[in-house]
Amino acid sequence: MPEATYRLVLLRHGESEWNAKNLFTGWVDVDLSAKGEAEAAKGGRLLTEAGVLPDVVHTSLLRRAIRTSEIALHAADRHWIPVRRSWRLNERHYGGLQGKDKKATLEAYGEEQFMLWRRSYDTPPPPLPDDDEYSQVHDPRYAGLAPEIVPRTECLADVVERLLPYWYDAIVPDLRAGLTVAVAAHGNSLRALVKHLDGMSEEAVVGLNIPTGIPLLYELDADLRPVQTGGRYLDPDAAAAAISAVANQGR
Amino acid sequence: MPEATYRLVLLRHGESEWNAKNLFTGWVDVDLSAKGEAEAAKGGRLLTEAGVLPDVVHTSLLRRAIRTSEIALHAADRHWIPVRRSWRLNERHYGGLQGKDKKATLEAYGEEQFMLWRRSYDTPPPPLPDDDEYSQVHDPRYAGLAPEIVPRTECLADVVERLLPYWYDAIVPDLRAGLTVAVAAHGNSLRALVKHLDGMSEEAVVGLNIPTGIPLLYELDADLRPVQTGGRYLDPDAAAAAISAVANQGR
Repeated sequence: MPEATYRLVLLRHGESEWNAKNLFTGWVDVDLSAKGEAEAAKGGRLLTEAGVLPDVVHTSLLRRAIRTSEIALHAADRHWIPVRRSWRLNERHYGGLQGKDKKATLEAYGEEQFMLWRRSYDTPPPPLPDDDEYSQVHDPRYAGLAPEIVPRTECLADVVERLLPYWYDAIVPDLRAGLTVAVAAHGNSLRALVKHLDGMSEEAVVGLNIPTGIPLLYELDADLRPVQTGGRYLDPDAAAAAISAVANQGR
Repeated sequence: MPEATYRLVLLRHGESEWNAKNLFTGWVDVDLSAKGEAEAAKGGRLLTEAGVLPDVVHTSLLRRAIRTSEIALHAADRHWIPVRRSWRLNERHYGGLQGKDKKATLEAYGEEQFMLWRRSYDTPPPPLPDDDEYSQVHDPRYAGLAPEIVPRTECLADVVERLLPYWYDAIVPDLRAGLTVAVAAHGNSLRALVKHLDGMSEEAVVGLNIPTGIPLLYELDADLRPVQTGGRYLDPDAAAAAISAVANQGR
């Protein structure tokens, strides 16, 4: 196994209020559920137990990832570390599906279309109109972005494309400086990052699931390649159970 | 009145667990009490009502100020703004009094000595030994500081001296960039900042009290001078009542 030089820990936010309600969320800024808060605190305890103590944290601009980072870092006694944020770590923009019920969407569009939007690499949902109640085009947190860069919908390929500049310009320099870096983000922004780290194909990433609230540690070699493909969950049994539960949902 | 060019909002953390127990705290990293959490949430609602929406927040490295900022910013829907932190915003280091009961200290040393330590501008308490259970010299959050700069005790004059470099190098540039800047900190680090802003004498600052949890807005002119001495509390009645209650404690 190559020598571990850098440490990166990925943390997907815990259950949100809309996960619990089975609505498509995307960029809508919902809060954690009580279960999600408990997941975040447990994530923080796992960091302490494993001795994986972040020196800096990067978060998306969305409340569920920010609160997950805050709760986990307080639990790990690392609340005082520097914080960086970027829209490039946001969840995939879910376009016209944002705010829609998942079951109703499945019934309205059929399973094939539904699974294309949810799981294909390069098929985005229809764009969200700017006057939709779940649009973020007038949200002050994106006011500094050029209008043409604010997404109206995204597929996973789009997320990879907008995430990588942040990886190279913000996260890699922190790793190169020798810091243990935490990234608190979302199912699809973390899938995009893992695809890049592990060199996964577009086909392979379709089958990748990252459980909520369980820190995923990537030890990287001097060339920023994982010493172990897929990294290592700090609670491997809980991670395996969560991944298997998701896999069985489709049956 | 000169023209308001810049906006700075100061937020003293709410009640901590040790405020409630009447212990000297200083750099000991205690959490907010439930009352302190409620104060922080109310502070955030006051920001929203006044339309004073921070674009960036600066905090100390202490949990009670960090959690106050997090709770207030979530309440004001500004949780996503950039965060900066510095030990230079920390509470005054209380030296050998850290962890001591205030009433027992008053009885042991007498009122004159007690008030000198609490309120004089330039008399620090005895230094805290490095092997004391309440020492922070081995705390990882200060590991990057040169050993000779980590305080063992401080008077308010020391706080002014270590705070001002951060004011000039970190806060002023954010103001000059046109951002509404929030500073979430502590009774004495905020007294030090207000002394500087208002050009208070060493004698005058001794009588200054800043209530907890009520945002204090300073509008500054183009030369960074307050357009109104003392700034403006976003809940002036509650601030006046809190200040008057503190003044009467000494009677």
